[in-house]
Amino acid sequence: MANNKKITIAVDAMGGDNAPGEICKGAIEACKKFSDIEIILTGDEFKIQSCLKNFKTSSQIRVVHTTEIIQPDEHPALAIRKKKNSSMRVAMEMVRSGEAQGFVSAGSTGAIVAGGVLVVGRLSGIDRPALGVMLPVIDRPSFMLDVGATVRCSPENLLQFALMGNIYSRKILKVANPEIKLLSNGSENIKGDETVLGARELIRKRENLNFQGYIEGNDIVWGNADVIVSDGFSGNIALKMGEGVVQGLKSLLTDEVRKSFMAKAGLLLMSGVVKKLWTRFNYEKYGGSALLGVNGAVIKAHGRSKAPAIVSAISVARDFVDEDGAQLIRNEIQE
Amino acid sequence: MANNKKITIAVDAMGGDNAPGEICKGAIEACKKFSDIEIILTGDEFKIQSCLKNFKTSSQIRVVHTTEIIQPDEHPALAIRKKKNSSMRVAMEMVRSGEAQGFVSAGSTGAIVAGGVLVVGRLSGIDRPALGVMLPVIDRPSFMLDVGATVRCSPENLLQFALMGNIYSRKILKVANPEIKLLSNGSENIKGDETVLGARELIRKRENLNFQGYIEGNDIVWGNADVIVSDGFSGNIALKMGEGVVQGLKSLLTDEVRKSFMAKAGLLLMSGVVKKLWTRFNYEKYGGSALLGVNGAVIKAHGRSKAPAIVSAISVARDFVDEDGAQLIRNEIQE
Repeated sequence: MANNKKITIAVDAMGGDNAPGEICKGAIEACKKFSDIEIILTGDEFKIQSCLKNFKTSSQIRVVHTTEIIQPDEHPALAIRKKKNSSMRVAMEMVRSGEAQGFVSAGSTGAIVAGGVLVVGRLSGIDRPALGVMLPVIDRPSFMLDVGATVRCSPENLLQFALMGNIYSRKILKVANPEIKLLSNGSENIKGDETVLGARELIRKRENLNFQGYIEGNDIVWGNADVIVSDGFSGNIALKMGEGVVQGLKSLLTDEVRKSFMAKAGLLLMSGVVKKLWTRFNYEKYGGSALLGVNGAVIKAHGRSKAPAIVSAISVARDFVDEDGAQLIRNEIQE
Repeated sequence: MANNKKITIAVDAMGGDNAPGEICKGAIEACKKFSDIEIILTGDEFKIQSCLKNFKTSSQIRVVHTTEIIQPDEHPALAIRKKKNSSMRVAMEMVRSGEAQGFVSAGSTGAIVAGGVLVVGRLSGIDRPALGVMLPVIDRPSFMLDVGATVRCSPENLLQFALMGNIYSRKILKVANPEIKLLSNGSENIKGDETVLGARELIRKRENLNFQGYIEGNDIVWGNADVIVSDGFSGNIALKMGEGVVQGLKSLLTDEVRKSFMAKAGLLLMSGVVKKLWTRFNYEKYGGSALLGVNGAVIKAHGRSKAPAIVSAISVARDFVDEDGAQLIRNEIQE
């Protein structure tokens, strides 16, 4: 940190499948890990305090009571507009007013995106926001955007995603000259539809971008790109498909091992390796997706987040605020 | 088989990464497995005969010499139009003329789709074709279409895919009342873009379809649907992402086990279970994708197909011809 001022992060305590318990636990753990942060938990004060009393009190945490909750099946923009006293909207208002610098929620993706645009505010020069996430890959980490903010994109949207991903990779992830690739249905130049072909031409022309062409689904896992640009529909499907296959293999392995004594013994001997494998490919570890293109650090945690994923999301928010990610993107776009 | 007439399948011996060696090997093995088929191998006769001489001659195989090959990076429609003596086009002409009933190639997906439409011919009533493939999943098999024939779709295209998938699942895969789902970026009804939302409305209204709403990426692996409908862009990405993650985990496991004696011993004890795991999730086993919506059995094998995947693709072609899949789809669409 450049100065001694603490970073304040507003955390929506009521969002996600494991709220408020795991959210509160994650907030407590994040405060232990980072002494330079303060957390404001928004939500039902009674419920939050019941959760918090299981832990040592932290002077880094305070609670702001709210009365409404945005549900996953509500229309995102309507919910954000109408539920003015929801845990999510109140936390976002804090970012807009400057009371907090960062925001974290495991609630509805749609509502976070809508709130990012309507409450926190879009960066001038950015037409549509993008959710960016670190993917678990074999070699080097890959940052993929968009994974669900903007379901269908124009070539210009995808160009802006490439510019934002480039800045995020360089400044926040400290990658020197990030290789950027565009997600497509094949690696050959003739692949892609009009949108993807159009985006390819636009991105290719930007001399400040180290653009390396298309990437296809089966190459993502090898970490062949620092930044993967995609529309939010396909990016979301790729992310969740990867997550599902890992969970499926894990569950199948557990079931099969249960049936055989030899396999049980084998798994015991291999436990270190297997644990390493699942940790490496734990999609929940990469818990924080940054909503890029809005005027602040808006971080979405996985809906099924438990405490460690919340810590990870808070950590992403902290880094983003620390590097002033929104300002960096604004400068880049204005150039 | 209803009668004693043999099923003739034209196999493009020059398409794919392992052509013509593995294609020829696969053809030989398929003939051993199915006494009711005849195979015509199209391609460079000298090369094909050199491959075939490694095996016992089969009266079920004959070779038709061609002089051209369609490369993966060629423009699909142009290549099909210009290379009249290519192994792929000549094999497809045989389906059109009735000399063969089925076609198999591990060559360029784009060219197979273009040839399916331009040479074999589109079924009347179908606007765009779809490539359908069996996915490796935990519970029951899922048939996903499209995985790469039509990169962007209209709601009407997706409805037609649902109708074709339904027939394929019922008649070829023998599923009694197939559950159909639409691939989207979330399971809630508010998800999806205009195209997917539009398709949802169209499919929902069809009383003969057992439509069950959206499926998201992480649910695919659990086999929660008999038929998964998608545009070719996202479907291709989902398919390849799954394939990539399995390969990645496999490679990581192998590397890690190599480093530890204990883990090596463990793997030995677990070898049965691990083998079962990879076999279950072997995307190459599901080697044949059917191009639905064209006037014949046009089957695409994976570009990296080895002999077993070619056998699998030939088997898909055989089933499709045996059940007269094209005719079934034609009848369904005309209703």
